[in-house]
Amino acid sequence: MKFPQDLLKTLLPFWDDIEETDRSIICENTVSRSFAAGENIHSGGECSGVIFVRSGCLRVYILSENGKDITLYRLFPGDMCMLSASCVLESITFDVTIDAEEDSECIIIGGTVFNTLSQKYKDIRIFSLETAVSRFSDVMWVMQQILFMSMDKRLAIFLIDESARTNSDEILLTHEQIAKYIGSAREVVSRTLKYLSSEGLVEVSRKGVRITDKAGLRKLSV
Amino acid sequence: MKFPQDLLKTLLPFWDDIEETDRSIICENTVSRSFAAGENIHSGGECSGVIFVRSGCLRVYILSENGKDITLYRLFPGDMCMLSASCVLESITFDVTIDAEEDSECIIIGGTVFNTLSQKYKDIRIFSLETAVSRFSDVMWVMQQILFMSMDKRLAIFLIDESARTNSDEILLTHEQIAKYIGSAREVVSRTLKYLSSEGLVEVSRKGVRITDKAGLRKLSV
Repeated sequence: MKFPQDLLKTLLPFWDDIEETDRSIICENTVSRSFAAGENIHSGGECSGVIFVRSGCLRVYILSENGKDITLYRLFPGDMCMLSASCVLESITFDVTIDAEEDSECIIIGGTVFNTLSQKYKDIRIFSLETAVSRFSDVMWVMQQILFMSMDKRLAIFLIDESARTNSDEILLTHEQIAKYIGSAREVVSRTLKYLSSEGLVEVSRKGVRITDKAGLRKLSV
Repeated sequence: MKFPQDLLKTLLPFWDDIEETDRSIICENTVSRSFAAGENIHSGGECSGVIFVRSGCLRVYILSENGKDITLYRLFPGDMCMLSASCVLESITFDVTIDAEEDSECIIIGGTVFNTLSQKYKDIRIFSLETAVSRFSDVMWVMQQILFMSMDKRLAIFLIDESARTNSDEILLTHEQIAKYIGSAREVVSRTLKYLSSEGLVEVSRKGVRITDKAGLRKLSV
């Protein structure tokens, strides 16, 4: 079944600049897919294709041999992932893993087709490279956080961001999940939360973390 | 003074595809510069330009507020740096610092001119983006090393690489310098070298480190 042109036109800025036959080829190689929370979408080394998020949230992370992982960034509705189409960008030699973090709907354009067209059209090549380069900055930010920033500051920033994103003072995540987001260990997160709690900034319960003094937490985060 | 065309032609793959007037503009905005070992070449936020290394070695690193730094990669003769031309790639939002690590000679093309031409020519835009994306993989490798790899393995890999690069079993670097390269602290490097030495793999002296059992060191590095 052919994927509707009008939707792809809104996602791909180069749509009107390529030949009708190539637009048709993209439509034939694009699918809509639903993923359940926790489901794996992409594993390192594959060329799964170019992924657009329509709803939900995807987590992009790197995995070590012994199963430790570090979140590079999360993809929200409207975001696009190029690192899942490793065949398009031959200079990207590292592998990322992508999981659905919530029930998510995605549009996936086949990597092989996208690669062929990115050889044919410079605009597609530029679009692919720019998407990848913009993630380079995200990853550098994560790296700087992990390497340079004290743990209480990292955790404060995470809690404030998460609270803003979900529009709630309750962060319904386990210590284990928080550790994954900020690239740390569960024990370290638990210890730091205990400290923030002793300062009266948060309350920790089995359900998660509740921010009780947002102004104080913000002060810690700058 | 105009920079010679024939040299730029060998460095820039798009040279023959751009107009003569634009080639001339590049020549007028290109300089040859010598840097002494230890000299700073680029600081975060500036748009110093596109840097080609002709001789010597440059170190590209990120710096935290409290002066801690992490080496992202080193540039050797023939290498090119795009991250020093932040105005060309607006999606690169992080700052790097670049120092000459040895006495080095570089060719620098002015950032403003390069930016203007990368708007005009898609080939220049693709060249710039591809150069930046290829460094993305280097940086991810560093990050994975720092986050996931045990210290003895990291140090073994560094010593073997350095020995291969300099074609010598003597690594004439201080513990402090080694720590900078592998993104660790001096104390941790000293402790790990002591361990490698007790295993008979290296000898540590004031001059640096001598590899005494390369096969053993290699075993540790895989």
